[in-house]
Amino acid sequence: MLAVWAVEGIPEIVIGDDLGAIIGDAVDGTLENGDILAITSKIVSKAEGRTVRADDREQAITDETVRVVATRGMTRIVENRLGIVGAAAGVDASNTPQGTVLLLPLDPDASAAALRTTLEARFGIRLGVILTDTLGRAWREGQTDVAIGGSGVRLLDDLRGSLDTQGRRLDVTAPAAGDEIASAADLVKGKSDGLPVAVVRGLGHLLDRDAPGARVLIRPSANDMFRLGTDEAWREGYQAGRADG
Amino acid sequence: MLAVWAVEGIPEIVIGDDLGAIIGDAVDGTLENGDILAITSKIVSKAEGRTVRADDREQAITDETVRVVATRGMTRIVENRLGIVGAAAGVDASNTPQGTVLLLPLDPDASAAALRTTLEARFGIRLGVILTDTLGRAWREGQTDVAIGGSGVRLLDDLRGSLDTQGRRLDVTAPAAGDEIASAADLVKGKSDGLPVAVVRGLGHLLDRDAPGARVLIRPSANDMFRLGTDEAWREGYQAGRADG
Repeated sequence: MLAVWAVEGIPEIVIGDDLGAIIGDAVDGTLENGDILAITSKIVSKAEGRTVRADDREQAITDETVRVVATRGMTRIVENRLGIVGAAAGVDASNTPQGTVLLLPLDPDASAAALRTTLEARFGIRLGVILTDTLGRAWREGQTDVAIGGSGVRLLDDLRGSLDTQGRRLDVTAPAAGDEIASAADLVKGKSDGLPVAVVRGLGHLLDRDAPGARVLIRPSANDMFRLGTDEAWREGYQAGRADG
Repeated sequence: MLAVWAVEGIPEIVIGDDLGAIIGDAVDGTLENGDILAITSKIVSKAEGRTVRADDREQAITDETVRVVATRGMTRIVENRLGIVGAAAGVDASNTPQGTVLLLPLDPDASAAALRTTLEARFGIRLGVILTDTLGRAWREGQTDVAIGGSGVRLLDDLRGSLDTQGRRLDVTAPAAGDEIASAADLVKGKSDGLPVAVVRGLGHLLDRDAPGARVLIRPSANDMFRLGTDEAWREGYQAGRADG
């Protein structure tokens, strides 16, 4: 049984807030060993002072971009410095004061690890922490939440090498558990109602102190068929699409 | 509170099985008004006889493909006749007898609607049904489950026009709730252990008898920056990517 609920009582976060203490107070007495906290990265950004003045949001996006993947009209799909591909490079202008934008945490995995350490010490239990953000997708409408930072959780649940019920190898099966957890949490957090933290219970088998961070969910561009930027990717990845279209 | 659990006691499904009766027996006495059933599309395909002999899986993929989106080596990313973009066009060769492959249901929304009607009549409650499949993504490692069919559930929870906490419009926010529900269900169903159905409780607000099916989650190719096939998309979508890479 998987249980997911939003944590009540998290106030509006401002620069310098001790997020570990605030979240700890809000969940005090409710956590169990093996729980995972899914935390909207936006409140981590706010606590870390990642709000910047930006009268020109487009310029802020340009500043965070390391590679433009595609453009159409005003829409840019870009790779940001964390390797995440999406619209607007993670530059957020919703729910922020006029004339400012919010950037992603500098090192989301480190932020997740710090929160995990704080909360594990306070409650004396093993926990996982993931930081979430909302991304659009190629080919599909709407957005889903994904894990952009994580600590203590196997975010990519690599089953390659295990067997199906016919005894054959499940060759290409590696559920993106971190993204699926973020999506499950989004279903209870909502977008506009000030519920930035969810508790996810029932996935203790995914807890792993040594698990890598959220970079494991980012496909290296050399292996990516949908991240232009080298002539090789261009030739190899798009040849058939061009020919058959 | 969102609660998600896998349904025990679903036997191996074969052609001609009355899936509505089998699932109904397995969940008898446990469902509540507003529950959503997330059903792995593979068992629907099996019941509907979508197993075909195919000594050549590659040929079966070609037969299901309406547009090749990209290729690299043996890997083809294609659009299938349902408009879904992924590897292998939904042709599944895992957990199927040697020398056969399993195709997606002919009309997943219709299959979901039929199951919903059967189960609602049997239990006298309102339900949602989604059919799930596992897809890879551009730019990100690993796979997530998505909704490829649905009935009675608002799969795209369009919030455009609603306001954020600062009173500004949430312009581009439309959570792909169907895909997020599928992902949450995948966390309890697993891949190889014969648990093809999950109950999702706590999302009754997403139930909507008149909601469109899973096609609402498929971006029309004309609006898609990552589905080659027309010179226009090529020019508009990839110009910057080529120039900046």
